Amino acid sequence: MQKTLPFTAEAACEWAKKIPTPFYVYDAKGIAEGVRALAAAFSWNEGFREHFAVKATPTPAILRLLAAEGCGTDCASVSELTLSALSGVTGEEIVFSSNETTAEEYRAAVKAGAVVNFDDVTQVGQCLAAAGCPKAVAARYNPGAFRISNAIIGDLKESKFGMPEDQLMEAFRLLKQAGAQRFGIHGMLASCSLDPAYYPTLANTLFSLAVRVKEQLGIAVSFIDLSGGIGIPYRPGEEAVDIAAVGAAVKAVYEEILTPAGLSPALCTELGRWVTGPHGYLVTSVVGHKHTHKEYVGVDATACCLMRPAIYGAYHHITVLGKEASPDEGVYDVVGSLCENNDKFAVDRPLPETRVGDLLVIHDAGAHGRSMGYNYNGKLRPAEYLLGEDGGLSCIRRAETEADLFATLDADPAFAAAYRKGDAT
Amino acid sequence: MQKTLPFTAEAACEWAKKIPTPFYVYDAKGIAEGVRALAAAFSWNEGFREHFAVKATPTPAILRLLAAEGCGTDCASVSELTLSALSGVTGEEIVFSSNETTAEEYRAAVKAGAVVNFDDVTQVGQCLAAAGCPKAVAARYNPGAFRISNAIIGDLKESKFGMPEDQLMEAFRLLKQAGAQRFGIHGMLASCSLDPAYYPTLANTLFSLAVRVKEQLGIAVSFIDLSGGIGIPYRPGEEAVDIAAVGAAVKAVYEEILTPAGLSPALCTELGRWVTGPHGYLVTSVVGHKHTHKEYVGVDATACCLMRPAIYGAYHHITVLGKEASPDEGVYDVVGSLCENNDKFAVDRPLPETRVGDLLVIHDAGAHGRSMGYNYNGKLRPAEYLLGEDGGLSCIRRAETEADLFATLDADPAFAAAYRKGDAT
Repeated sequence: MQKTLPFTAEAACEWAKKIPTPFYVYDAKGIAEGVRALAAAFSWNEGFREHFAVKATPTPAILRLLAAEGCGTDCASVSELTLSALSGVTGEEIVFSSNETTAEEYRAAVKAGAVVNFDDVTQVGQCLAAAGCPKAVAARYNPGAFRISNAIIGDLKESKFGMPEDQLMEAFRLLKQAGAQRFGIHGMLASCSLDPAYYPTLANTLFSLAVRVKEQLGIAVSFIDLSGGIGIPYRPGEEAVDIAAVGAAVKAVYEEILTPAGLSPALCTELGRWVTGPHGYLVTSVVGHKHTHKEYVGVDATACCLMRPAIYGAYHHITVLGKEASPDEGVYDVVGSLCENNDKFAVDRPLPETRVGDLLVIHDAGAHGRSMGYNYNGKLRPAEYLLGEDGGLSCIRRAETEADLFATLDADPAFAAAYRKGDAT
Repeated sequence: MQKTLPFTAEAACEWAKKIPTPFYVYDAKGIAEGVRALAAAFSWNEGFREHFAVKATPTPAILRLLAAEGCGTDCASVSELTLSALSGVTGEEIVFSSNETTAEEYRAAVKAGAVVNFDDVTQVGQCLAAAGCPKAVAARYNPGAFRISNAIIGDLKESKFGMPEDQLMEAFRLLKQAGAQRFGIHGMLASCSLDPAYYPTLANTLFSLAVRVKEQLGIAVSFIDLSGGIGIPYRPGEEAVDIAAVGAAVKAVYEEILTPAGLSPALCTELGRWVTGPHGYLVTSVVGHKHTHKEYVGVDATACCLMRPAIYGAYHHITVLGKEASPDEGVYDVVGSLCENNDKFAVDRPLPETRVGDLLVIHDAGAHGRSMGYNYNGKLRPAEYLLGEDGGLSCIRRAETEADLFATLDADPAFAAAYRKGDAT
């Protein structure tokens, strides 16, 4: 897959004259087209809904854009519930899919009227005691092993998420007894998979379980949540999953397993990375070059803006703006300024020649980017901008300031006094 | 080394009645005794100073405590310079040790009168152009390879930090010409080393370089910065470095290499982890137990409070308060609630039996703990408390609130209006 940009180098240079780098740009058109393609792929299923994983991009303007396209949210904390509510996503448009959950969190989720997706049978009693029984509930399944065409995907026995079948049945028994009205099954058995067989194989697993739930408990599930797990092509050579083909393949499994069993649940997905990942761009400036034991390009973004390359060694494609057609001139490590040697956006990356002040665009930063931002070395997290379908750019989150960084130090009277005095001078 | 606590289980339970978990506690006595031992180990060296690495624990009350013990700071950003100044650390008490540095950062460092430690020869011109020549300068050395008793420590050819000798000489030439008055050499060639030979071997490398600098450039360095790199015993079986012995061993190298060359530089250190690491504790509550494919203890802290176990697989010892003498009853994964399977404080850890509400203390969290905190899944970063030498506990940083989390969303008028309305109801 060719890596392209939804804006021109000239436009970005104009932006960077007014906006200090680094900053994020999200492409509204790309995001909307993606969720429309997803909805179309599952349009055969009545009640299908994408519950966008808020953790991927917890930015209200993005959540509102998605809500306008019919998406709900997937939340796992009180703050994410608040973000959903304030972005117009309410009630069972929200799946509360948490683990190691506190009483406070259950109270907030039940009060919001969200679907409560239980990670574990032991949590059912805790929720009932803390918040009463949610009207709509789900249970997260962990079969211990999962294969796509004989390849084991991850080690689900080492996964903290979900429960085995016997505990899931017990959870449903307890919830039925407590008065739950709508039941669902949730499963996320892979992460960032580009295998088009992932969703259909997962569907087979979850749909078969739904049939057993009906047989054993007499519960006809209202919905089945295929959760996330579909990846995106971070590397230029990788192919994006054909979502229309995936939808059709899931339909075949649905008709093979669920329809004959008299079940017709709505499906949902929680595709955070797939929805926003490819449509977010981190724009950063070259601040220097270093020629020591290797060749380095220093930039003003750091792992504090985008943690994935530093932490996972993840590949993110980089475009030098204005030099898209230039030949690669050398091989570089592209590095941020943290006092950590892993603060590298790329290692041994072929790139065109760059000069101080050149703008670099780091691709596929739209999910798990700004949302995993931190303040190590006193770095301030960057602003976010939305590129509208009309080509206009609007600020949807400003950059942090020192005042933000020091906000929680108002508990220290000596510091607070010194800070006020410093402000006054 | 036995893992002990500077407070009793009873005291911690009293705190937790008033303070919501998770929270950090730092032991003022432990920190002060550590830096006193360090100062004593290097008392033979006139002008010795520990420059505490602010990134390890960027909390003003800790910086003030250290300043009162004679410590300066090691900074790498404008925010860290601000924190230093507002904590009473000024001028050459600060070493500004950055990389991929911007013009704005050089201006702030030179304005503060800090020692500017150049990571690279190419940065000298950038600093001179942006901010003029600092009075006191240093250059960071990267020899490409470094051995302690024949073991290669890290791969310095893959390190983005520092410059080779020819570039360091060139940097000093440029800085001398530009009017720099005091010169120093900086080197950090290992990280988190428990080998008592690390500092003496490093000293040999840097002191020999100082002699060559004098021979080739006629510059008698005023200071040599041994930087950080001394580790702490995270695991109970590991031994702490004997800092008095290290000081004596460095003295021997000093007298062997520097004294005969007519050099008598002050030494400095930048021991963030060693200074505060062992004296910070993350207190968290058990929120549940899960018995699936493994046994899990769920806690209310997450990787957002302390990233190291999730990201590096780092070992942090865990004490179940009130059960210090109880036998281990099983083997558990101790997990937080993030929607990431790496959110585990311990994997396969033998622990006594725990109940919901029990307090767990995660040891050695005093450095690179709260400072690497983040807000994934909408998690709010925890408060910090200082345990005074008198046994009193004071809040030195409050916990984050949703208002803090949403502060940068005031740039989004639709969200800001909904948030105000929500507040009013």
